[in-house]
Amino acid sequence: MFRHQKELQFEVKVDRPDPKLARAVQEVLGGQFGEMTVMMQYLFQGFNCRGEEKYKDMLMDIGTEEIGHVEMLCSLISQLLDGASPDDQAEAAKDPATAAILGGMNPQHLLVSGLGGLPSNANGIPWNGSYIVASGNLLADMRSNLHAESQGRLQVARLYHMTTDEGVRATFRKMLARDRYHQYQWMAAIEELETKNGVVVPATFAPEDEMEAQPHAYEFWDLSEGTASKEGRWAQGEAQDGTGEFVHLENPAPQGNIPNMKVPAHKLHHDLAEKTGMQNVKDTVKRMLHDKE
Amino acid sequence: MFRHQKELQFEVKVDRPDPKLARAVQEVLGGQFGEMTVMMQYLFQGFNCRGEEKYKDMLMDIGTEEIGHVEMLCSLISQLLDGASPDDQAEAAKDPATAAILGGMNPQHLLVSGLGGLPSNANGIPWNGSYIVASGNLLADMRSNLHAESQGRLQVARLYHMTTDEGVRATFRKMLARDRYHQYQWMAAIEELETKNGVVVPATFAPEDEMEAQPHAYEFWDLSEGTASKEGRWAQGEAQDGTGEFVHLENPAPQGNIPNMKVPAHKLHHDLAEKTGMQNVKDTVKRMLHDKE
Amino acid sequence: MFRHQKELQFEVKVDRPDPKLARAVQEVLGGQFGEMTVMMQYLFQGFNCRGEEKYKDMLMDIGTEEIGHVEMLCSLISQLLDGASPDDQAEAAKDPATAAILGGMNPQHLLVSGLGGLPSNANGIPWNGSYIVASGNLLADMRSNLHAESQGRLQVARLYHMTTDEGVRATFRKMLARDRYHQYQWMAAIEELETKNGVVVPATFAPEDEMEAQPHAYEFWDLSEGTASKEGRWAQGEAQDGTGEFVHLENPAPQGNIPNMKVPAHKLHHDLAEKTGMQNVKDTVKRMLHDKE
Amino acid sequence: MFRHQKELQFEVKVDRPDPKLARAVQEVLGGQFGEMTVMMQYLFQGFNCRGEEKYKDMLMDIGTEEIGHVEMLCSLISQLLDGASPDDQAEAAKDPATAAILGGMNPQHLLVSGLGGLPSNANGIPWNGSYIVASGNLLADMRSNLHAESQGRLQVARLYHMTTDEGVRATFRKMLARDRYHQYQWMAAIEELETKNGVVVPATFAPEDEMEAQPHAYEFWDLSEGTASKEGRWAQGEAQDGTGEFVHLENPAPQGNIPNMKVPAHKLHHDLAEKTGMQNVKDTVKRMLHDKE
Amino acid sequence: MFRHQKELQFEVKVDRPDPKLARAVQEVLGGQFGEMTVMMQYLFQGFNCRGEEKYKDMLMDIGTEEIGHVEMLCSLISQLLDGASPDDQAEAAKDPATAAILGGMNPQHLLVSGLGGLPSNANGIPWNGSYIVASGNLLADMRSNLHAESQGRLQVARLYHMTTDEGVRATFRKMLARDRYHQYQWMAAIEELETKNGVVVPATFAPEDEMEAQPHAYEFWDLSEGTASKEGRWAQGEAQDGTGEFVHLENPAPQGNIPNMKVPAHKLHHDLAEKTGMQNVKDTVKRMLHDKE
Amino acid sequence: MFRHQKELQFEVKVDRPDPKLARAVQEVLGGQFGEMTVMMQYLFQGFNCRGEEKYKDMLMDIGTEEIGHVEMLCSLISQLLDGASPDDQAEAAKDPATAAILGGMNPQHLLVSGLGGLPSNANGIPWNGSYIVASGNLLADMRSNLHAESQGRLQVARLYHMTTDEGVRATFRKMLARDRYHQYQWMAAIEELETKNGVVVPATFAPEDEMEAQPHAYEFWDLSEGTASKEGRWAQGEAQDGTGEFVHLENPAPQGNIPNMKVPAHKLHHDLAEKTGMQNVKDTVKRMLHDKE
Repeated sequence: MFRHQKELQFEVKVDRPDPKLARAVQEVLGGQFGEMTVMMQYLFQGFNCRGEEKYKDMLMDIGTEEIGHVEMLCSLISQLLDGASPDDQAEAAKDPATAAILGGMNPQHLLVSGLGGLPSNANGIPWNGSYIVASGNLLADMRSNLHAESQGRLQVARLYHMTTDEGVRATFRKMLARDRYHQYQWMAAIEELETKNGVVVPATFAPEDEMEAQPHAYEFWDLSEGTASKEGRWAQGEAQDGTGEFVHLENPAPQGNIPNMKVPAHKLHHDLAEKTGMQNVKDTVKRMLHDKE
Repeated sequence: MFRHQKELQFEVKVDRPDPKLARAVQEVLGGQFGEMTVMMQYLFQGFNCRGEEKYKDMLMDIGTEEIGHVEMLCSLISQLLDGASPDDQAEAAKDPATAAILGGMNPQHLLVSGLGGLPSNANGIPWNGSYIVASGNLLADMRSNLHAESQGRLQVARLYHMTTDEGVRATFRKMLARDRYHQYQWMAAIEELETKNGVVVPATFAPEDEMEAQPHAYEFWDLSEGTASKEGRWAQGEAQDGTGEFVHLENPAPQGNIPNMKVPAHKLHHDLAEKTGMQNVKDTVKRMLHDKE
Repeated sequence: MFRHQKELQFEVKVDRPDPKLARAVQEVLGGQFGEMTVMMQYLFQGFNCRGEEKYKDMLMDIGTEEIGHVEMLCSLISQLLDGASPDDQAEAAKDPATAAILGGMNPQHLLVSGLGGLPSNANGIPWNGSYIVASGNLLADMRSNLHAESQGRLQVARLYHMTTDEGVRATFRKMLARDRYHQYQWMAAIEELETKNGVVVPATFAPEDEMEAQPHAYEFWDLSEGTASKEGRWAQGEAQDGTGEFVHLENPAPQGNIPNMKVPAHKLHHDLAEKTGMQNVKDTVKRMLHDKE
Repeated sequence: MFRHQKELQFEVKVDRPDPKLARAVQEVLGGQFGEMTVMMQYLFQGFNCRGEEKYKDMLMDIGTEEIGHVEMLCSLISQLLDGASPDDQAEAAKDPATAAILGGMNPQHLLVSGLGGLPSNANGIPWNGSYIVASGNLLADMRSNLHAESQGRLQVARLYHMTTDEGVRATFRKMLARDRYHQYQWMAAIEELETKNGVVVPATFAPEDEMEAQPHAYEFWDLSEGTASKEGRWAQGEAQDGTGEFVHLENPAPQGNIPNMKVPAHKLHHDLAEKTGMQNVKDTVKRMLHDKE
Repeated sequence: MFRHQKELQFEVKVDRPDPKLARAVQEVLGGQFGEMTVMMQYLFQGFNCRGEEKYKDMLMDIGTEEIGHVEMLCSLISQLLDGASPDDQAEAAKDPATAAILGGMNPQHLLVSGLGGLPSNANGIPWNGSYIVASGNLLADMRSNLHAESQGRLQVARLYHMTTDEGVRATFRKMLARDRYHQYQWMAAIEELETKNGVVVPATFAPEDEMEAQPHAYEFWDLSEGTASKEGRWAQGEAQDGTGEFVHLENPAPQGNIPNMKVPAHKLHHDLAEKTGMQNVKDTVKRMLHDKE
Repeated sequence: MFRHQKELQFEVKVDRPDPKLARAVQEVLGGQFGEMTVMMQYLFQGFNCRGEEKYKDMLMDIGTEEIGHVEMLCSLISQLLDGASPDDQAEAAKDPATAAILGGMNPQHLLVSGLGGLPSNANGIPWNGSYIVASGNLLADMRSNLHAESQGRLQVARLYHMTTDEGVRATFRKMLARDRYHQYQWMAAIEELETKNGVVVPATFAPEDEMEAQPHAYEFWDLSEGTASKEGRWAQGEAQDGTGEFVHLENPAPQGNIPNMKVPAHKLHHDLAEKTGMQNVKDTVKRMLHDKE
């Protein structure tokens, strides 16, 4: 169960309205890596977390913090929209100076939300549940969390330069600091889990369970001409868990067959010609020649 | 520019059709972390990559490989659907045994694709571009790639147990091996980049640029009751880049004000009461009292 | 800012797992009228609420409660999925009895969430931000809230009959009771606002501002043959705000012109024939004849 | 079956083109509460309506009218786009005055529709079927209809101020008048149904069927600090249907347990530690202590 | 303006309910090529049609017919769902025979629509506006219409075999006949337009306007190994409009350069290394060598 | 399996950056008919193609070419964005001239992709799998391909006029030429298939299988007033396959009944009145009177 405190986690103050910036800020509220995403991702991971009390508690701590970040961004956007009014838009059509300020405004900030934050990104695409993941595998999810905070902080850093409003920038600095902490946090959790279980997700599907396919786990397939990629750590040396040695395949040959799929039943209305028996024999031979395993 | 070779990267063989499994396999073809996602993610990262030839080349190598994985999964799904026909569905309504086999089939495999793979997930949701990211920041994107391969391998591992068909399992083992390699690969790239630039994304927005907000980059806000989360590495010790010391805030107080937003222009048709001057004075006082920074 | 308490608002107990029911329950978690919708709708209305402290406070009270309902439903779904495992699905293909229990399971509960709740509906469609509204007009939004709680309670009532599990039913009864209260709550708020401002949204665009169009605000246009609809209160008597008298138009004639749109510039590549001058004259005449206002 | 008459329901005339306004008008054509929404919502409610001839007939009357409103808005948008051409966009990049007029244009009005209306909103998001509801419960749906007309009229009122074009405004006044009537209409239908069946949806799930949960149907849970919400009608007095008395819970305690979910089967690859027997005992005890019902 | 007649265009009769078939039928109601698609596509093409009265009138004729097809399919689905009830689902979990009949039901037919048609496809994905096109180019759109009717009739033909219910099949036969006619209709319109303007869309961007690129309009690039494709009409002979001769490029070489994009401004936080001057020189040289036009 | 060559298929050169044009170009990269669509459509049709080697090979040739077109457009967009920086946006708010150039920029090109192409259209809507079709019926799919290339070339032609940059125009001319060739290609394939199997899709559901509905395959239903549509080839003469003669129905009467659907079980909570026995008798009679077939 949750409780709400009236104060914001951090102060949100805007020196002067800027409706066009309000549109851009929507990206870090309702975009792919906005605050709605981390809020819902951490809450779902926490709600669904089975066992392992420490991680569940930690996920609930940070998920709860992120609800407050959504709240802060709605306040920021509302202040950036302060004073905007529909008839300004009629003005903007006449005057280039007004157009410069109001032209890039999201029309839904006037028509749909009445000067409030929207659950959508900088182009007005509604936030959706496929932005998040809660897989039930701790290491997989914490890697997702680290990645989300990395993309999120990157976007706030870019936004930071889009304004010279010192009030807005102060809010962004708070977000940048928290996103930095959250990167540390997920790195720490990842390190704990990797040390305990191993670095490959899922650890519980072991190399030896891959049987005859196991050697392919160490091959770099160079399928784009040019060999610059050969210089990376991924193309030489030992795997991070010491289970094998990387191999660089310079001009790799396919290991599989030419797929040769059956013509389906008439009732699928495919318009394909039925093959003659002869063709099928040829197909089978060709298939055998390509069967390499 | 690309070229296509008729053979599949690895052999794809199915011992017996299983339309219900075909539905589940769609998740790793067209789902959030399916092969379409990694294919499009790596290709867009490669296409958009500026400078840094080594990484661009490597992204194109693996992106090109993943197109072939989409091809392999289409072949797998087609084979799992072999022989299915619309009138089987009429049969299934009468016979529990047939229903058991065909009941969970995706009806679009009959109606829409005519027994072929679909660009959608296990519930038929079409793949979409918001599953991927190509941000122009190498470290952020490689973390995304590591996370995608982690979720992807996890899903294939779960799928693996949903069938006892040895042909299908052999294909999955190839995918598990490759997803393992791709995790090694992104870990190696991440390590290179972290060593060069630092562990926080973006490295180019430095701690000192966060100014007065900087201390918040080391605080764990414990906002869910219970203190199990205190035991983690994230709540104690030094930050991974040595720039500060973690602080655990047990019962953190909000640092911000109660938001108090202006009543907008009449032409927004809000139905809100205009505040009296007196109320505004009270508001201002209350606001000042809560201004803590 | 928010805080989290470890206990659920109400107890959630399941007598026995039922993966197929778990799929259906997703509708009231992540569907159009599920708990995610009311949670996000009330929070956004509260965050964006300007002035009017009473309503803002009330919206925050109930929005905060609804986060806890999302939490409860994740717990319910997790329990309904307890013990499910990927290899059961392989079994189900062989045995009708197992298929009956597991056949209708959402495959993403195994593959994607690892036996946890998903932010999506009963068909796996991800929740999205266009399910909610926060318009900045109190009466419009409270009508939306009443409607959401009505649809929500209806769905829970239907779900209630889909199980005989007494534990699950007890949880549903709690939800039914709360949804009943929330209907009372919005009705009460609506009544206050209608009494103060009038029954039509927005009250601030007054009948007289509609000028020459004003009479149309009292006409029932009977455009589907049959006259049963004539018997309703909407077709006779005085408008609810006493500003006019309803009129039933039995066989209404159009008031407008035949639209006659200009052929666009060549560079739009439309392939339309250019009209001759003569045709344009005829068009203008025809247009004048149909200009009825 | 339907028939089409060439004349528009009301005249649609535009004094001068305004491509930027055309973009905004898309919101009330193809947005969440645009004419496509009410058209499809009333038609589906009418098509699906079982029994109750009066309501079905009425739904078909208004649904049929709304198809004509979609037609009117396409005509309005086409006229607002008259004369726009791709090379104006090349011009706009050079000249601020042209940019002011054309800058905010939806590029799809040039590229995709060739100067016609689009089935999408002011940001270009395609209309989708999850905007509508036809639940088979009359009262629930009529509340939805009242809410849709309220949001719709609010948006048209806001649009009204975005232009000074008297032709466009005359069209908007017709829409405002009709949206006013449609609010009266749904209010009248709602009143009839509430009088007959009761005010809570669904009426057929009665308070007594909620059993032990029934008292919760009268409680206001004050979960956001501050007590302004206590002053509302919803926090005091009798329920609207006289079945109980409202209770304001100032600092409500959770009624439920701490959820404690089982660690799943190994084949879900979760990486969770198995609990020791001892931990399970502790869990059970803790669970019992929190079992409050 | 539109009018509605109570009778359906064709009779819709169902011999016995079949909830699972109802789910499949949703594909041809609310799927990519369902009746909602052709209805909305023809109406938008008609509403937006400028000039050319014959085509506009024809589009309105068929668009109006298609509204009635949506009506027919809602009636069909409602009848297929007759008698279904939530408690059947509880039964189905126990009894394989019931499960066989009800197991594949769309749960939203019970929970969301109360036994009515939904504006979504066979997997419950809501219909959306990106399924349709109205481009303002007649030939482009009529090709789209022919394709939509082709896919639509194909799906109905497949559905036809999924049931043995003679009532349902009679309805499908009506749809198959109409979809056949509509294919004839669009073919006839296409032939008229091709004869008048030429076969390439848009005819108004002429071959000579393609200048130096013009020869590429006759080349088949063979980029997938194997030469079976060489046998087609597309690889030999004259173009359909007689403007050139087809050329088969067996092993085509790229005509372009290796892209070499500039490292962006520091404020994009990309983490890329700045290139040294030397590298840039090398790049320029390499670029020149690849500049082939 | 695929391979990548570093050079682009055609050279892509931009004379000067133009961020606003970059936004528009997204339509032909990630829009409904952009290069991602044809790439994925041809690849899926090729991957899923059963039998008929010639068509499969041809689909793989062109699908492989289209991957390279996505690559070219990413390069084009990156170059159009060259030099853009977040602080330009802060500038744009002050200066109308800068605003004219940067105002219409897609904010995600700065925030999300860091100056690279996005997998989305001109309004930022992510590309999705429902844009494509691979039905397993060759003729249906080739008609879809012809239509996609028609819409695609139309959009590029419109884009062509939106810029005077000769570098960009040269790239567009290459695309226009290729889209012209691809129209020829699909026309040729369609002609082959129509000659072999007949012009109606699917050919395998023959006219005679439509039984009593067969005559409706030749009727033009004139449901929109006005008779201009009577003049078309579709309303007179013989069907293209010579199986019947077209009939123009001037004022067609419905052939069906008034739908009269059963009131459902109480547990659906519909609030509908139960009909009396007497009403049911009347219904039945009315139904019989309307049963016309």
